[in-house]
Amino acid sequence: MTGVRFEPKVERIRNDIMKFAEFVSPGEPPYTRISFSPEDREARAYVRLLMEGAHLQVRTDAAGNIVGRRKGAEGLAPIVIGSHLDTVRGGGRFDGVAGVVAALEVARRTEELRVELAHPLEVVVFLAEEPSPFGISTIGSRAMAGKLTGEHLAITDKTGRSLGEALREVGGDPDRLPEAIRSTGGICAFLELHIEQGPHLESAGVPLGVVTGIVGIWRGHIEVKGQPDHAGTTPMGRRRDALAAGSDIVLALERVCAAAGDMVGTVGRVEVFPNALNVIPGRMVLGMEMRGLTIDRIEAAARQFTDRLDRIRDERGVDISFDFSMTSSPVHFPEEVLAVVRGTAQRLQIPYVELQSGAGHDANHLAGIAPGAMIFVPSKDGRSHCSDEWTDFDDIRIGCEVLAAALVELDRRQKA
Amino acid sequence: MTGVRFEPKVERIRNDIMKFAEFVSPGEPPYTRISFSPEDREARAYVRLLMEGAHLQVRTDAAGNIVGRRKGAEGLAPIVIGSHLDTVRGGGRFDGVAGVVAALEVARRTEELRVELAHPLEVVVFLAEEPSPFGISTIGSRAMAGKLTGEHLAITDKTGRSLGEALREVGGDPDRLPEAIRSTGGICAFLELHIEQGPHLESAGVPLGVVTGIVGIWRGHIEVKGQPDHAGTTPMGRRRDALAAGSDIVLALERVCAAAGDMVGTVGRVEVFPNALNVIPGRMVLGMEMRGLTIDRIEAAARQFTDRLDRIRDERGVDISFDFSMTSSPVHFPEEVLAVVRGTAQRLQIPYVELQSGAGHDANHLAGIAPGAMIFVPSKDGRSHCSDEWTDFDDIRIGCEVLAAALVELDRRQKA
Repeated sequence: MTGVRFEPKVERIRNDIMKFAEFVSPGEPPYTRISFSPEDREARAYVRLLMEGAHLQVRTDAAGNIVGRRKGAEGLAPIVIGSHLDTVRGGGRFDGVAGVVAALEVARRTEELRVELAHPLEVVVFLAEEPSPFGISTIGSRAMAGKLTGEHLAITDKTGRSLGEALREVGGDPDRLPEAIRSTGGICAFLELHIEQGPHLESAGVPLGVVTGIVGIWRGHIEVKGQPDHAGTTPMGRRRDALAAGSDIVLALERVCAAAGDMVGTVGRVEVFPNALNVIPGRMVLGMEMRGLTIDRIEAAARQFTDRLDRIRDERGVDISFDFSMTSSPVHFPEEVLAVVRGTAQRLQIPYVELQSGAGHDANHLAGIAPGAMIFVPSKDGRSHCSDEWTDFDDIRIGCEVLAAALVELDRRQKA
Repeated sequence: MTGVRFEPKVERIRNDIMKFAEFVSPGEPPYTRISFSPEDREARAYVRLLMEGAHLQVRTDAAGNIVGRRKGAEGLAPIVIGSHLDTVRGGGRFDGVAGVVAALEVARRTEELRVELAHPLEVVVFLAEEPSPFGISTIGSRAMAGKLTGEHLAITDKTGRSLGEALREVGGDPDRLPEAIRSTGGICAFLELHIEQGPHLESAGVPLGVVTGIVGIWRGHIEVKGQPDHAGTTPMGRRRDALAAGSDIVLALERVCAAAGDMVGTVGRVEVFPNALNVIPGRMVLGMEMRGLTIDRIEAAARQFTDRLDRIRDERGVDISFDFSMTSSPVHFPEEVLAVVRGTAQRLQIPYVELQSGAGHDANHLAGIAPGAMIFVPSKDGRSHCSDEWTDFDDIRIGCEVLAAALVELDRRQKA
């Protein structure tokens, strides 16, 4: 029956999360566990122990994903739950880890309560969800979707090591990468619990978010070329100041995205040359991104932004080169899975709001190969990717209960 | 008689300047000769040879200034001409060097033409006029003005070497620094030929600038503290983006200084934290300066700028800390010296304009201890502090002729 209460154990959730927070790089700001680092490998070894403790059959797939499997009653494709263990530099203790620990707790309770599932259950720790030393993110889920290419494998990090070599070091096998592909029926359904990383759940005062989709992200690289002149002897009217033009650009992106509503846009990275006190900046490089819920809206904002770049170029007499180097499309989770998650929350009488994810996730890739959805739990003050990142353990427990119950319901529905 | 024509030799000027351009750091952009570097020491050794060739008596004073002296007919304080040999990183071949070579040529011609001067003539190569590895500039002239302190001597560079130690390495003696002081009558008068580093002479189509003063410079350090949040999940209206606030600041300084007329203001240095593509910048540091011809104008602009900072702080909910870490007052050269330079140019029928220097010079310090002035020669396209820096050798020859003739006139007038 779908009436089973899993009653996840908040103490185990707390202990696991705090234990993972010990596997962090000593020379980096807390809590840093970059993918492929010694600390990430320690955390991965530890999660295997926890999986074995939950009576899961553990393997590392060719793409470096750790898969803990519980056999199903029949030979069906598995239902996948899980998240990631790697962090950004100076990241927090919950992003990714909360979802891994919740999935482990679901597996433990499933075993303890002897819940019978038709489908195999797989708890998956996806490899390198955050930006990796190889410049790309969501490596493990990308490989599952068949989108990790030979070109990707050849990318080298600062030490000259290729992604292919690094994959081997974490137990993967670049030569057998096709074996990790799960497209076309390899996964029955997936669910990922994740912290919100934003303020909406806290503002709404609810412990749960039903995630209906993930924003599309367009990232671009802007280079401004002005003229590096003497800061004392060049009259204001004769300057071609790359930093002043870059400042116009930062504010233009802010205005375009604020006016669009439901969009965000950020210049997160800048470099100024020669970056000397008494020299007018001659060159500036800016890394920007915009995120939106529909392609139409993103395209409209991108058009407005490039119009503004043209105006800045003309007004300031600088050269501006710009292109979108990365574009991902918005994801919309299928209505049948959302109905299961909503129905589960209602049955368990857990207040929720529906919202979209402003951050990319492994679910971006999984959504292309299997039906699924995400469950959000609140982030204190909406903070994330920083050491202040916090989610109350009891909120994770509540999310875990919904995750487990929705999983059981999906298992029943997908069997038919 | 003041009717003597020096007829400086353009070939010698060209050869000397091109020879100094060979003493540059191989690993740096051309033409780099940072003070205290091996290349700077080679250039300093070479200038001593040239001084000896001009029959000057050469010594290095306790502050590391190289002094080439021609005896006067009487025991009077010397008239000083000269400039500097060090460059900024990626600087040009003329800034400083043109004035050193012109002074050398004056000494050579004075000797060749057996011009008799009442006062001793000193050709001085000032130590470290540009920003040095110790953070400060105009070290040699500062010491001559008695303003190089024990605190300065204790400053260390990146290798841990103190300025005091570095002084010893270039032939100075920090323990005997008072001996280098020339205040209160130690210099009869000074003249410095320098490239304009700006566009005015070229625009006016004249080969000569009579510099009536040097701008005052106020430098400040601004720190903006916002909040580093997730670039995807934080709505536009909830951001405290330090880079967006910093962009407002860059543009505010530009507007204030452009509106003030006759002023310039520049943000030349910025640093953004964490400077990651998917994190809203939480902190930004900006290095700014403003330059103006009168204290009143600089103060008025500074007030307007800090008012704008207050407004940005309020509007964006960020913390902004700001203070002026360095202020130098505008210099106005004495009318009696300017009259000599003007009269000399008129007598030689050399067209000139009067202008102010937008750049600081050793003359800032010398002006406090002796009457003097500067002579500018044109900079092609107004470019300076870059490898494109160029001045036609014939323009240097013309400036050198004025320098020599003005020197003779000063010699006569100051004797009385």
